[in-house]
Amino acid sequence: MSKKFVYLFSEGKSSMRELLGGKGANLAEMTNLGLPVPQGFTVSTEACTQYYEDGRKINKEIEEQIFAALAKIEKMYGKKFGDENDPLLVSVRSGARASMPGMMDTILNLGLNDKAVEGLAKKTGNPRFAYDSYRRFIQMFSDVVMEQSKKVYEEILDNIKNSKGYKSDTDLTADDLKEIVALFKQNYKKNQGVEFPQDPHTQLLEATKAVFRSWDNPRANVYRRMHDIPYSWGTAVNIQIMVFGNKGETSGTGVAFTRNPSTGEKGLFGEYLMNAQGEDVVAGIRTPKHITELKQQNEALYNQFLDICHTLENHYRDMQDMEFTIEEGKLYMLQTRNGKRTAKAALKIAVDLVNEGMIDEKQALCMIDPKQLDALLHPQFVAKALKDAKPLSSALPASPGAACGRIVFTAERACQIVEQDKKAKLILVRLETSPEDIEGMNVCQGVLTARGGMTSHAAVVARGMGTCCVSGCQDIKRIDEVKGEVLIKDKLLKEGDWMSLDGSTGNIYDCAIETEPASLTGDFKTIMDWSDKYRVLKVRTNADTPKDAAQAVKFGAEGIGLTRTEHMFFDADRIMAMREMIVSKNVDERKKALAKLLPMQKQDFKGIYEALEGRPATIRFLDPPLHEFVPHTDEEIKLLAKEMGLEFADLKSTIIGLHEFNPMMGHRGCRLSITYPEIAEMQTTAVIEAAIEVNREKGYNIVPEIMVPLVGDVKELKYVKDIIVKTADAIIAKEKANLKYMVGTMIEIPRAALTADKIAEEAQFFSFGTNDLTQMTFGFSRDDAGKFLGEYYEKKIFESDPFAKIDETGVGQLVELACEKGRKTRPDIKLGICGEHGGDPSTIAFCHRTGLTYVSCSPFRVPIARLAAAQAAIQHPRATK
Amino acid sequence: MSKKFVYLFSEGKSSMRELLGGKGANLAEMTNLGLPVPQGFTVSTEACTQYYEDGRKINKEIEEQIFAALAKIEKMYGKKFGDENDPLLVSVRSGARASMPGMMDTILNLGLNDKAVEGLAKKTGNPRFAYDSYRRFIQMFSDVVMEQSKKVYEEILDNIKNSKGYKSDTDLTADDLKEIVALFKQNYKKNQGVEFPQDPHTQLLEATKAVFRSWDNPRANVYRRMHDIPYSWGTAVNIQIMVFGNKGETSGTGVAFTRNPSTGEKGLFGEYLMNAQGEDVVAGIRTPKHITELKQQNEALYNQFLDICHTLENHYRDMQDMEFTIEEGKLYMLQTRNGKRTAKAALKIAVDLVNEGMIDEKQALCMIDPKQLDALLHPQFVAKALKDAKPLSSALPASPGAACGRIVFTAERACQIVEQDKKAKLILVRLETSPEDIEGMNVCQGVLTARGGMTSHAAVVARGMGTCCVSGCQDIKRIDEVKGEVLIKDKLLKEGDWMSLDGSTGNIYDCAIETEPASLTGDFKTIMDWSDKYRVLKVRTNADTPKDAAQAVKFGAEGIGLTRTEHMFFDADRIMAMREMIVSKNVDERKKALAKLLPMQKQDFKGIYEALEGRPATIRFLDPPLHEFVPHTDEEIKLLAKEMGLEFADLKSTIIGLHEFNPMMGHRGCRLSITYPEIAEMQTTAVIEAAIEVNREKGYNIVPEIMVPLVGDVKELKYVKDIIVKTADAIIAKEKANLKYMVGTMIEIPRAALTADKIAEEAQFFSFGTNDLTQMTFGFSRDDAGKFLGEYYEKKIFESDPFAKIDETGVGQLVELACEKGRKTRPDIKLGICGEHGGDPSTIAFCHRTGLTYVSCSPFRVPIARLAAAQAAIQHPRATK
Repeated sequence: MSKKFVYLFSEGKSSMRELLGGKGANLAEMTNLGLPVPQGFTVSTEACTQYYEDGRKINKEIEEQIFAALAKIEKMYGKKFGDENDPLLVSVRSGARASMPGMMDTILNLGLNDKAVEGLAKKTGNPRFAYDSYRRFIQMFSDVVMEQSKKVYEEILDNIKNSKGYKSDTDLTADDLKEIVALFKQNYKKNQGVEFPQDPHTQLLEATKAVFRSWDNPRANVYRRMHDIPYSWGTAVNIQIMVFGNKGETSGTGVAFTRNPSTGEKGLFGEYLMNAQGEDVVAGIRTPKHITELKQQNEALYNQFLDICHTLENHYRDMQDMEFTIEEGKLYMLQTRNGKRTAKAALKIAVDLVNEGMIDEKQALCMIDPKQLDALLHPQFVAKALKDAKPLSSALPASPGAACGRIVFTAERACQIVEQDKKAKLILVRLETSPEDIEGMNVCQGVLTARGGMTSHAAVVARGMGTCCVSGCQDIKRIDEVKGEVLIKDKLLKEGDWMSLDGSTGNIYDCAIETEPASLTGDFKTIMDWSDKYRVLKVRTNADTPKDAAQAVKFGAEGIGLTRTEHMFFDADRIMAMREMIVSKNVDERKKALAKLLPMQKQDFKGIYEALEGRPATIRFLDPPLHEFVPHTDEEIKLLAKEMGLEFADLKSTIIGLHEFNPMMGHRGCRLSITYPEIAEMQTTAVIEAAIEVNREKGYNIVPEIMVPLVGDVKELKYVKDIIVKTADAIIAKEKANLKYMVGTMIEIPRAALTADKIAEEAQFFSFGTNDLTQMTFGFSRDDAGKFLGEYYEKKIFESDPFAKIDETGVGQLVELACEKGRKTRPDIKLGICGEHGGDPSTIAFCHRTGLTYVSCSPFRVPIARLAAAQAAIQHPRATK
Repeated sequence: MSKKFVYLFSEGKSSMRELLGGKGANLAEMTNLGLPVPQGFTVSTEACTQYYEDGRKINKEIEEQIFAALAKIEKMYGKKFGDENDPLLVSVRSGARASMPGMMDTILNLGLNDKAVEGLAKKTGNPRFAYDSYRRFIQMFSDVVMEQSKKVYEEILDNIKNSKGYKSDTDLTADDLKEIVALFKQNYKKNQGVEFPQDPHTQLLEATKAVFRSWDNPRANVYRRMHDIPYSWGTAVNIQIMVFGNKGETSGTGVAFTRNPSTGEKGLFGEYLMNAQGEDVVAGIRTPKHITELKQQNEALYNQFLDICHTLENHYRDMQDMEFTIEEGKLYMLQTRNGKRTAKAALKIAVDLVNEGMIDEKQALCMIDPKQLDALLHPQFVAKALKDAKPLSSALPASPGAACGRIVFTAERACQIVEQDKKAKLILVRLETSPEDIEGMNVCQGVLTARGGMTSHAAVVARGMGTCCVSGCQDIKRIDEVKGEVLIKDKLLKEGDWMSLDGSTGNIYDCAIETEPASLTGDFKTIMDWSDKYRVLKVRTNADTPKDAAQAVKFGAEGIGLTRTEHMFFDADRIMAMREMIVSKNVDERKKALAKLLPMQKQDFKGIYEALEGRPATIRFLDPPLHEFVPHTDEEIKLLAKEMGLEFADLKSTIIGLHEFNPMMGHRGCRLSITYPEIAEMQTTAVIEAAIEVNREKGYNIVPEIMVPLVGDVKELKYVKDIIVKTADAIIAKEKANLKYMVGTMIEIPRAALTADKIAEEAQFFSFGTNDLTQMTFGFSRDDAGKFLGEYYEKKIFESDPFAKIDETGVGQLVELACEKGRKTRPDIKLGICGEHGGDPSTIAFCHRTGLTYVSCSPFRVPIARLAAAQAAIQHPRATK
């Protein structure tokens, strides 16, 4: 038996979403519920897959099923496709499993041709309506199916209007429209080389192909990657008999939500327009009316609509977003779906639905997209203040939140100003940022850069800090640090001028716009409390400073999963000692430099322990290649040589000696502690002494977790661990302290995962460093992959960014293997993840399934991780919590 | 029961080698055979391990066992340690499982002190002998046990001799020696701060510890790494009662081989010295006599010795290397072992032993170290010609073989000269080489560089070519290409001057020394024939040129496992087209440049196919990062811009745009074909057209194997394969050819191994690229690992170079996994290895056990691989051949 590719609405149901797409499944469900739905059929997502398998062709079998379904609809309505007297007209709409903008939208009035248009005129007694429908159809078909620019058609229309002195489309007469149709068809022929297709069956097949084709257009591909929708799903096509909202003053069309999608408040929300087709509402030529006004217009119909809304919300147990048409006083439902909503609305609706007894807590948690929470965690512009502001420019929304402050051009200047005025609000404007700018970035409200993308230094660091950042602004024509001015487009701004940034949209304003802080109470708190109730995974944070640690604790972090100790060494007052350490020629020199770093590092750790209030902290030892810390230009090297009392030539040759061909695969991580054991000694001393002191001062019982990075062989870990244990035990004995500590490792080298059973003999915990693990497993570096990843997405070789969402097939296989082997050696081994993946919901679900103990992510991702962990636990219950 | 750490010779046997070391096991075996062996005991290798575990201490238990064994020896010989009348004296010698130079050698006469020396004098009636023995003991003990320089002792000795006007040590009287002993002891105290130990038991324990300690000295560590001996084996210590070869003219000492270790010829070979202790034979003060002269001296003893030799060779079924001592006319055997031999001797002995019926072919194959064959595959100096030559300098033996030619300073000049005179013999002398020099290197007999180590460009390329290379010559003070001269030490050499290089020793000669080519006949051929009879693995070669391919075929290669197509693009006449291709701004420009490369590439492949005479060839598509091909200095860029008619600034910015942070993990491999499909099209065209033409011209049935590099996901392979298949099929159809071809991939990215089941859906063969796989699995690049690998070896984190010998634990795990998964999808999948590991015998054994189809290695490793594969097959029989 052949496969069924086409389903009448009466044959489907809402659970057939994978096959029929969201729109098709819901049209079927509404049909089943007895709601007034214009009938039709859905060409399934499997037909789409088949279309691509067949080399972008609709095969005979599918074609026959389409026409068979069409025949049933013709019979149902007693109309014929292309009929000269009363033609059947249909709409063609795409409908994937998940709602997807960027794909082909809608073709209306399909089925019209030179004869059918006469039939429609005759049947409706409205030739103007008939020809208007025909010219719209030609226009849409050319645009959407033949991918010909709309512009020419609009020009033709405007020419006619101008020549006749008309102001509005409504001034056009039936004869005008006839003339326009003729011109449109001429133009179609000129462009396509063939006549406008008169056979409605041809029209239908071409429109169906256009929908399938649009599944693979660039915008759809980008959207899918951003929203993690597999290419393999495909889209369905919905073919539905036309009803007309433009048949006069008793007809109309509209959209409505059962709750307010901005605030979440219960109650009908939406708008409609009488005597209009769908596109007119969106076009904005006429101002639509609020949905409640419909009551005055037609109370019975309004009540019928209210009833339907109620039925649908109760049926789907979620806020509905519906489209309807009124044809000559009769209501038709064209679509319903769970409505998109703001983060704030999402929380309120979820909590309200539980309070209304519609759903339970678990269902409520699962209906919120964790990524949406991000918007609630950052300061926002006060809505009223933003209303009249016009952006000067716009660039990449690199780190979310709103910021308002006075412009400053260097990190040092920012620090200076804040030192004098703790309350100063600043926006740092830079060509691009570098590690030296971190301190300055930290005291600013927002950061704007002229160069760099979403993964530039500024973007990554700002996201880590939760600081608003807009990056890669191409409108910045010039930045002059010395003069203190920046030219954006034609506008010259100076230090001290006001600027506002929206890190969620990328907008840049040359004025002050009031902001308000994030609120973590109310519905937000309720959802977080429920999340904590159901989740199994613990949630820690990646934090390098007391400030970040405190922020993360506020967001519910249960400890630190990763402190990168090197980030502390970029501070202006430390980098010199760090550089001395690096260029040391022998152990004594190195120890002397390290001795300068020790008290600073110890103070860092004390600050972090205090901010954590007794929660655990995993501290990773020095990781990056040393040359990252040293200056590279001759000028900077001269300065350093002078400050250190060294010969320039000597110092330069030392620095050149640090050069690496592939720094990512060079002298870094535990390799540093193996070649320079003094570093591990100093860092152990700082970790242990700080813990002893804070435990004494605050009465905590901190158990420091020391993490050795970049281990690939158990002997590497053993070597460094021996140094740590020897150093730590000596301090503990000397201090007569009762301190426990743990030593573990990052699993970030493929070989570490492959030999995890051996490594677990020494490691008390594993933390998966999935950034490096992804780089090594794929064999490409994040910094260099930009050169080809674009092509990879375009050619469907990758569908998602492996640095954002864990690659379960490859990298995940290593993670699972390492967990299994690690537990075999040490059943109670603590397993965590601290790569950037730790804040990604789909990765969190993977971590839950794999049985990790915790995920660790940047502070601003902690609430997202809490919710995502709860969803994972609800969807994949583990034996024990 | 406590562990047994000490074994009397009479308690051991030759199969206890792991426990007793080679020397100890053989002493035991000779004892069992009833041969005259001075008795003693062996402190086992387990005692050595225990010593290290206990923090470099000999524990009570071992100490007691040592003294218990000593007591038995005392009883056996009726002598007492430290006895005033007839003291027991012993020698202490190290003895690991494998023979290992670089460790502690020997201490003789242990047991002497101020009283025992008198006893010895009394008992022997020879005070001169007694005091000479004592002073030698003090000297050896100080040197070997206390690690004090011998020099001071030699000075004292010389002072006495000078003050007395003596010419030779033999002039010293007993009283002189007494005085010397006193001075030695004084000096010992001055240096060590304590008296020379008088207690023989202390002497013995200290000497034992010194042997254990020497297991971990730097020289031993380096030797172990070179010879793949695990640190964990430890060494044994042999304590044996002294016999004296220096008791007068009826005493003596010597060494002998049962066959000639240089030529392999059967018959006693060795030398001896009467009235001497072991060290005197080596010291070279007196000229030893040929062993056969012993017959005149003492025929009975000589015959007894001949008998013993015969017994031992028959017993061990291998050529024996023996040490013996004659004490007052009585023969004692001190050691026997399988003798070290030259490559030539190794082959002859193995073949002769089979012919003599002593061993079978399999045993013969297993007794040859495959690595030794290398020496036979390259030209050698004619022994007579070399005899009087004195090296001017010496540097790193970077690529084996001997070379003699006239000096030339640039690759271009070399090519020029050879163009005019095909028979010109040249030595290329460079500061260092770069890819542009390859063509020039190829026409030279040898290469000498001032900079660079064993893995420098010159070294790697020369080894690949089988060209002699000496690298990193620090005696080169100056090279002036323009003037055409080089200053080595104080010697100025000019273009056209003769130079000879020995790539096996690193010697550099400023004269012409005649060379002779390698001979692949006789014993060599016999061994290769036997190897082919028993091996299961096929052996292919890595070759990029017809010359290399022909060389490899001569060495028995069964095809090509890897042709690196990019190596062909560095030739002077091609690099320009390659660079044009790289800096192309669009597809058309790129296709134009590729069109220039196509005929050259096709010609390359035709040459290779012809050289292979119908054998299969795997051709890898373009792999390296493109920036490797472009110039980097402004000057070179200007030149290129001029040649290409481009703006310098434009071209420079294009080249800067090619920069990568981690080129190893950047835009290379199949990523190039995905971003620039035109490259794959051109290469496919060249491969297929060349095969069709050669098949037609020669009547071969070549099935080209196209290999896509650096695949990490099946979709990458699928994408490139689609291009290959489309291009190839079109050509085959157009040419109406009946050509088959295969498409496969390198497995060199961890993710490829992890997803090999999926990749095998598209790949018809896998070839393990273990160089990259090792880099990615360990997370360090070969170019950068030098910064820390030294420390890793020193700290025993690594015991062998993972780029030379495959890391079976980690990288091997991925190889096994990939084989298993690949076979699951495609049971008949062809599996090979083409990394440099492919020529390493221990890796070949791994490949055999893992069930690969073939190994591929550089042409000069092919015979090594054939033998190693045979050894693997003999040691690990597979179910089917």
